[in-house]
Amino acid sequence: MTLRYIRQAIRNIPGYVPGEQPATAGVVKLNTNENPYPPSPRVGEAIVAAVRDPLQRYPDPMAAEVRRRAAARYGVDASQVLVGNGSDELLGLVMRACVERGARVAYPVPTYSLYDTLVALQEGTSVRVPYGADWSLPRGLLEANAALTCICRPNSPSGTAVALDAVEGCARDGEGLVVVDEAYADFGEDTALPLVSRLDNVLVLRSFSKSFSLAGLRIGLAIGTPELIEVLVRIKDSYNVNRISLAAAAAALDDFEWMQRNVARIRATRERLTRSLGHLGFAVPPSQANFVFARRPGSDLESVYLRLRAQGIFVRYFATPELRDGLRITVGSDDEVDALLEALAGEAP
Amino acid sequence: MTLRYIRQAIRNIPGYVPGEQPATAGVVKLNTNENPYPPSPRVGEAIVAAVRDPLQRYPDPMAAEVRRRAAARYGVDASQVLVGNGSDELLGLVMRACVERGARVAYPVPTYSLYDTLVALQEGTSVRVPYGADWSLPRGLLEANAALTCICRPNSPSGTAVALDAVEGCARDGEGLVVVDEAYADFGEDTALPLVSRLDNVLVLRSFSKSFSLAGLRIGLAIGTPELIEVLVRIKDSYNVNRISLAAAAAALDDFEWMQRNVARIRATRERLTRSLGHLGFAVPPSQANFVFARRPGSDLESVYLRLRAQGIFVRYFATPELRDGLRITVGSDDEVDALLEALAGEAP
Repeated sequence: MTLRYIRQAIRNIPGYVPGEQPATAGVVKLNTNENPYPPSPRVGEAIVAAVRDPLQRYPDPMAAEVRRRAAARYGVDASQVLVGNGSDELLGLVMRACVERGARVAYPVPTYSLYDTLVALQEGTSVRVPYGADWSLPRGLLEANAALTCICRPNSPSGTAVALDAVEGCARDGEGLVVVDEAYADFGEDTALPLVSRLDNVLVLRSFSKSFSLAGLRIGLAIGTPELIEVLVRIKDSYNVNRISLAAAAAALDDFEWMQRNVARIRATRERLTRSLGHLGFAVPPSQANFVFARRPGSDLESVYLRLRAQGIFVRYFATPELRDGLRITVGSDDEVDALLEALAGEAP
Repeated sequence: MTLRYIRQAIRNIPGYVPGEQPATAGVVKLNTNENPYPPSPRVGEAIVAAVRDPLQRYPDPMAAEVRRRAAARYGVDASQVLVGNGSDELLGLVMRACVERGARVAYPVPTYSLYDTLVALQEGTSVRVPYGADWSLPRGLLEANAALTCICRPNSPSGTAVALDAVEGCARDGEGLVVVDEAYADFGEDTALPLVSRLDNVLVLRSFSKSFSLAGLRIGLAIGTPELIEVLVRIKDSYNVNRISLAAAAAALDDFEWMQRNVARIRATRERLTRSLGHLGFAVPPSQANFVFARRPGSDLESVYLRLRAQGIFVRYFATPELRDGLRITVGSDDEVDALLEALAGEAP
């Protein structure tokens, strides 16, 4: 039995299933919440310049340049920032730092399913508290008395954002750490960053994959108290972010306006997409992200998903009882959204 | 108390301390086992080409192109290869896969101190079995009855390599997984890769940081049974290696000869360095790596280390009772090695 040496807890872990990455060009890819627009040209220039750096040398383990720029941009001290190989790495670090065997990890569901996998890896106990119909922070979350609470805000796959007051209350009333996973925050209306200066048990995660158009380079930020960041630094891989991604992250932060322009375009397209989906009979909760969750309550949209796929239009379908009546649709370019809407218009409601 | 939510086991973890990365240019950097020669020009070309790819799209989560090339190069199937964000990430994955709380993890010491940190993170039990004077595989390792055995081969900081037969015996006689950490294997005489096809409990780790001159890009490989690789895939971050590093890894594998030429130069310099250090009164075990461990048994070489440092020559000094009589010196370019030898010649033996 070749896997006799694998931990029992791991043997049956399903693993996070990422959205399909179709190899064929020319598809309309609205399934993994990527940005339809390219990153700032300064990113490419910074990468080409970095090729002339000594690639045979290790990168800066502390990512000092990126921390400095991020700190200035987000109004915190550099000691409050950790740079990660995507925010997924940072989520994993937080889990390892806070979750002992049997410890409770609470999060409203449905949400980013990676949390389930990471809790299982720690042999923690997932406390999955269902969102109500209004997508506000469920009260049960505060009663969970969790070592770690994860709030994806804006949330995937719903696109909704719970009230900031509710997040603050959750951190103030609890003993555990509250992680606010803000991978999509640039597309929303506000951020939990101000909470970091008021509460010592709030950690905010950011991603460069969505708003900065850098999914391909794996860059995330954690922003929290210097003490917490220092612990995470101790348990991270020494050289967790490569030279090229560091150069790209610095350049992206230097051209913040580029990101903001793309975000503005995506928001405008999002409003149009939401309205059009409504006309097509879908219920769409108000999204603060770069995707929308289009539902036909009570139905199973697998067949719609498959027919779109056959036409080269990829959206995300989750085959679970709670989510199968919806499709998570990334806000692509206007042309991509037009193609999607045209295909959906051909579907019987 | 801001860290009340941090696991007790983590609060006092010292963390791995990477070698100093001096910011000043012009220093002679022989402290972190980097390659003094740049990577193949094809790597830079591949990176510049990859900038024209859509960086806003996620990388291939399975790294298919790199797996295919690595499999062909190392004579295994692509399903036996996993690509990591440096071999450090792969070590961490293996620990998470195999080490339950209290599980025994054995390794001969002194060795790569990251093992200690990773075991502590899992709340495992480190079984540190001291090497004898001849640096052969200590017998106690087989008697440790460990869930996981880590053999750094060639070993850091000694540069020595235990007999391949002994590694095979360790895997054959034990129930646990044996990880052969071959970060430095290209500089040595042989590899444990053939064991992977004979034994289902051997995993070989490779790094592109040393022989391929790509420390800056964070690329590692794990090569083992398809079943074990499949488990590691399930628990890794979905998009653990970025687009640029994948492109660089593929290009580096395509120019294997470039790597081999640099390895040959470093081996020649290593022999000269070893001889010269002998003339200066150092005992140097035969190295199969891109560094040597130069000892003056019974002494403490901190003052030598500091005086070299003051002259802009960085080597690695470990302030532990077992290692303070030695300096780990990376085999740099001939000029760098000359500068080191000249500085050491000015030291009283």
